[in-house]
Amino acid sequence: MIPVSEARTRILSALHPTPAEIVPLAEAWNRVTAAPVHARLTQPPRDVSAMDGYAVRADDATLGARLRVVGAAPAGHPWVGVLGAGEALRLFTGSVLPDGADGIVIQEDTNRDGDWVGITEAAAVGRHIRRAGQDFAAGDVLLPAGKRLGARDIGLAAAGNHPWLTVHRRPRIAILATGDEIAMPGEPIPAGGIVSSNSHALAALVRAAGGDPVVLPVVADDRAALMAVADAVAGMDMLVTTGGASVGEHDLVQEALGARGLKIDFWQIAMRPGKPLMFGQLGPVAMLGLPGNPVSSLVCAILFLVPAITVLVGLPPAPPPTMQARLGASVPANDHRADHLRATLALGSDGGLMVTPFPRQDSAMLRTMAQAAALVLRAPNAPALAEGAAVEIIRLDSAGL
Amino acid sequence: MIPVSEARTRILSALHPTPAEIVPLAEAWNRVTAAPVHARLTQPPRDVSAMDGYAVRADDATLGARLRVVGAAPAGHPWVGVLGAGEALRLFTGSVLPDGADGIVIQEDTNRDGDWVGITEAAAVGRHIRRAGQDFAAGDVLLPAGKRLGARDIGLAAAGNHPWLTVHRRPRIAILATGDEIAMPGEPIPAGGIVSSNSHALAALVRAAGGDPVVLPVVADDRAALMAVADAVAGMDMLVTTGGASVGEHDLVQEALGARGLKIDFWQIAMRPGKPLMFGQLGPVAMLGLPGNPVSSLVCAILFLVPAITVLVGLPPAPPPTMQARLGASVPANDHRADHLRATLALGSDGGLMVTPFPRQDSAMLRTMAQAAALVLRAPNAPALAEGAAVEIIRLDSAGL
Repeated sequence: MIPVSEARTRILSALHPTPAEIVPLAEAWNRVTAAPVHARLTQPPRDVSAMDGYAVRADDATLGARLRVVGAAPAGHPWVGVLGAGEALRLFTGSVLPDGADGIVIQEDTNRDGDWVGITEAAAVGRHIRRAGQDFAAGDVLLPAGKRLGARDIGLAAAGNHPWLTVHRRPRIAILATGDEIAMPGEPIPAGGIVSSNSHALAALVRAAGGDPVVLPVVADDRAALMAVADAVAGMDMLVTTGGASVGEHDLVQEALGARGLKIDFWQIAMRPGKPLMFGQLGPVAMLGLPGNPVSSLVCAILFLVPAITVLVGLPPAPPPTMQARLGASVPANDHRADHLRATLALGSDGGLMVTPFPRQDSAMLRTMAQAAALVLRAPNAPALAEGAAVEIIRLDSAGL
Repeated sequence: MIPVSEARTRILSALHPTPAEIVPLAEAWNRVTAAPVHARLTQPPRDVSAMDGYAVRADDATLGARLRVVGAAPAGHPWVGVLGAGEALRLFTGSVLPDGADGIVIQEDTNRDGDWVGITEAAAVGRHIRRAGQDFAAGDVLLPAGKRLGARDIGLAAAGNHPWLTVHRRPRIAILATGDEIAMPGEPIPAGGIVSSNSHALAALVRAAGGDPVVLPVVADDRAALMAVADAVAGMDMLVTTGGASVGEHDLVQEALGARGLKIDFWQIAMRPGKPLMFGQLGPVAMLGLPGNPVSSLVCAILFLVPAITVLVGLPPAPPPTMQARLGASVPANDHRADHLRATLALGSDGGLMVTPFPRQDSAMLRTMAQAAALVLRAPNAPALAEGAAVEIIRLDSAGL
């Protein structure tokens, strides 16, 4: 058996980001940049006013001075000309400072009287002026390559005058449920069969991680049908299988696709829930074989599949983010397999996070898995811990999990 | 001026969730249930084995007993018959327990010899059996109404045999940028003009919150064109405007749409960045008017628009989630307006979050806003704080912001 971290490292080191494509700015949200985004203009493009007020020559705008108002320049309507001695120009926030001016007197420090304005607070050179390029200058790197684009990044790329962005293509992830006993929701269920939940949960997880799921038809435990999957995944970036339970986990998939050139490692992972994991290459397509049990499948997907997709979308390889919390109940000593206890989260009396494992951790209980707000990570052979002890957790209550 | 929390309360109390629609299970991820999801079957449907091994009558399967193996029942292929005295049935994890059996002997505790199996550890009634309905029973509420569906919820709904789910319709949010000086990225920029960043940033934010953005063409500061917007927003759930700066913020929008029946509150909010905010109703369409400044627009969108969309998608009204962090640098006393300092996040030496405001907080610096990992919330008239003091923050480095 190999540890969770070793299995993850092997998987992530075998994967590469998808190639780049060009997408409209409006569709680039949540995608990952494949090239740096440089500013195509300078912002602000000229010196502009930071306030509503008057552009002046600071030498003129002394306390008590009266200046002649030569016009107004709303933002977007720059005044053409050169501000002369004894003159002032009405400005608003964002208005371009006219040539000749070197200061701003804010509205509150003036008395307007027809074409004249009285100064009640002396101007200072440069005061209330936003200099050209204060936000960014043409050529600046606004966004580096390898950044997942949030709403603010989209705004920044727009401000930098980019109608298109170069991002990594969404990875296409084929999802294959196998097993004689599997029925799709709403379809006839064979005697002793169960309704497929893995494919749909995994497809949603793929979406949450930034991939495009392609759910393949369920394949019964049939060698020829399994072999044909090798053709169905042409053009995919990854094939994810969940083993049927009617034959030894993964055995038939491994054997049938082996005949189609699958190069695979089959690992027993020292973890619970979930233990057998396959990883390899089916020609150019990476393949990840998850357990058939729905809870094990989900836990393994969170530990291995989501980080794998994260690499495919263009982000650096990394384990799932963890954080600290305090136990709301004691936990027993752990055996030799890393455990992932399904747990609830609450705020403790000290304002910190308190995590309480469900009393029953049966891997057949999908409802408990769906209701869990966190997984408590228990290392192999970890000692018993009392209520209040600090533990490492993976939060499940965000990120679409 | 009114406080941020009062403005938000007024906005959220005026909004209602969108009506329900039916969507395929595969498209329900991240949507919010509009009705409880009841289990349509019992899981497991029958008593099943929790292990690989043999179904037995526990009275027979004593230490040293030899039982006759009458067949095998892979998962998905239940055995038909009644297990008799002295008989055993080969089972696998998930296999249905045959009638007549009341115990399981796990594989490791047996010696198989042709049609016979020797027992090396006595069976106990009920041991290693998952009872029918252990996960859920037909009729159980698997998911309540008003739940945002994560990947695990999709799996649970599938397991409950639901090919369709009843969810709230995605709210359609019209986004209108106004102003003579606004150009779309890649299009000709008028003299003194700027490239529109608000519309795209807000559209991405709407997506992140679960809405469908509809970006309207930019409207210049023209009364007739603004009045026509009232027709363009028919069928929308909300209109979000960002004011041009060339005329008093919001003035022209308020006046032109007022002539089309806009019932509105215009508020000065005691906050920075951002101050003027509009909220009201244009017939059946809620309207939110954000500041034109890109940083102010984004901060106000995070404080008001995202919570508004959250109500529209079917979740309970709530402020943006906040958490505690320690200051990485001192901050000065605050004036009478709540401030929202753009800041970086790091892990402090104690493993806790350390938040450090950017030295320069100019509301014209969109790049700083895009690079910020958090907003530090500074209450009106909050005292100066030293490095290391605890502050409340809104994280920006997740949730697609």
